[in-house]
Amino acid sequence: MNILLLPELDNNQSCISITNLDQINHVQKVLRLKAGDSLKVGSLKGKLGTAVIEAVSDKQLKLGQLNLNTMPPSKLDLTVVLALPRPKVLRRLIMDMTAIGVAEIILVNSYRTDKSYWQSPMLKRIDEFVKEGLQQGVDTIPPKIQLKKRFKPFVEDELAAWAKDRSLVVAHPYSPLSFNKYIEQAGLPQVLCIGAEGGWIDYEVSLLQNNGCQSVSIGSRILRTEAAVNALCGRYL
Amino acid sequence: MNILLLPELDNNQSCISITNLDQINHVQKVLRLKAGDSLKVGSLKGKLGTAVIEAVSDKQLKLGQLNLNTMPPSKLDLTVVLALPRPKVLRRLIMDMTAIGVAEIILVNSYRTDKSYWQSPMLKRIDEFVKEGLQQGVDTIPPKIQLKKRFKPFVEDELAAWAKDRSLVVAHPYSPLSFNKYIEQAGLPQVLCIGAEGGWIDYEVSLLQNNGCQSVSIGSRILRTEAAVNALCGRYL
Repeated sequence: MNILLLPELDNNQSCISITNLDQINHVQKVLRLKAGDSLKVGSLKGKLGTAVIEAVSDKQLKLGQLNLNTMPPSKLDLTVVLALPRPKVLRRLIMDMTAIGVAEIILVNSYRTDKSYWQSPMLKRIDEFVKEGLQQGVDTIPPKIQLKKRFKPFVEDELAAWAKDRSLVVAHPYSPLSFNKYIEQAGLPQVLCIGAEGGWIDYEVSLLQNNGCQSVSIGSRILRTEAAVNALCGRYL
Repeated sequence: MNILLLPELDNNQSCISITNLDQINHVQKVLRLKAGDSLKVGSLKGKLGTAVIEAVSDKQLKLGQLNLNTMPPSKLDLTVVLALPRPKVLRRLIMDMTAIGVAEIILVNSYRTDKSYWQSPMLKRIDEFVKEGLQQGVDTIPPKIQLKKRFKPFVEDELAAWAKDRSLVVAHPYSPLSFNKYIEQAGLPQVLCIGAEGGWIDYEVSLLQNNGCQSVSIGSRILRTEAAVNALCGRYL
């Protein structure tokens, strides 16, 4: 938590009361701050700045002297289309993609996505993971997130239309073209399609290719989904 | 687990018995393989290939027809000097750096490394995390790993000597030179120094700079240590 993310604020609002227990706990136990101390804050969808602690207890944190004067960093020109992963790794993936500045995240079904993942209570907590990511990455603007339960219609009806004016890539270990070579020739792609554990099946790679995606490889080493997402998104920093 | 990592094998050894319960469990529960099925294997420090299951029970896995004929992938020309992180994240960091192919990992003390981290039982399990990383990344050669409990002597006596024939970089969010710009001008550095949570303090950055490291930034966004390590190492793929 490198900033404390506050709710959307009214113009000229100069104080606020926080009741989120994770945030209060972080201020008390990790940062070890007390009344009179200053800390870094940001208002959701707004600016970054500082605030001063007026009072803090286990249940409430009162902040005053709100001074929000810095624009959040710009987003990467990047949409990630990610096969819905195991619920256990969803939190860190959403956090990391948010922190690194991905503009848009689309979670899609895939052959290797277990049907049960779509029923996971973790999917209802995505906003919470986004906030964690914003607080990690020192940002205030949530990425756009969409869930697409049907792979084929999404690829044929939506993704295919993007190919007219955006560059699209699917990461696939068996592609003869390396991601490095692709970037040298065409620059950073604006859309990255990344499989979850086990990767895309051949049918999915073919469908993506037939709808405007160039297949690229990052070598024979197979990375955990989180590691692959960060290794690929790291190119945009 | 994308290969099953076997111990070091004798020349021409054609069968082996496995008693590691994680591996047996993976073969039975995740891969759902049975006697007669083939699977991908590698021998520690040796080659990659296949084996056939002769028998499998909850306590033992007998493999035959060992056919090891493929060299493991080459390592990245990269040493990572990492501030010893929280024990909780050490496992994934070692796994990920191993899977992505880092040749050498040096865990050093830093101002923000809590003293208790050096007493953690997780430090005794590094070999285990390396094996997990090799099985993830489809490799058989462990990275060299060293622990350096004293930062200043390590930097002044060892790291400084590397600067004669290797390019060294320290990742620091407040550096005016971006990592991209550095790579454009000087190519990929052979040594990356990465702080843990909270990053390096100014004294540490100065000491690294005075001993041959160029300070570079990956932008104002602050990433989790794992995310930063993968984002930086991803440049080498």
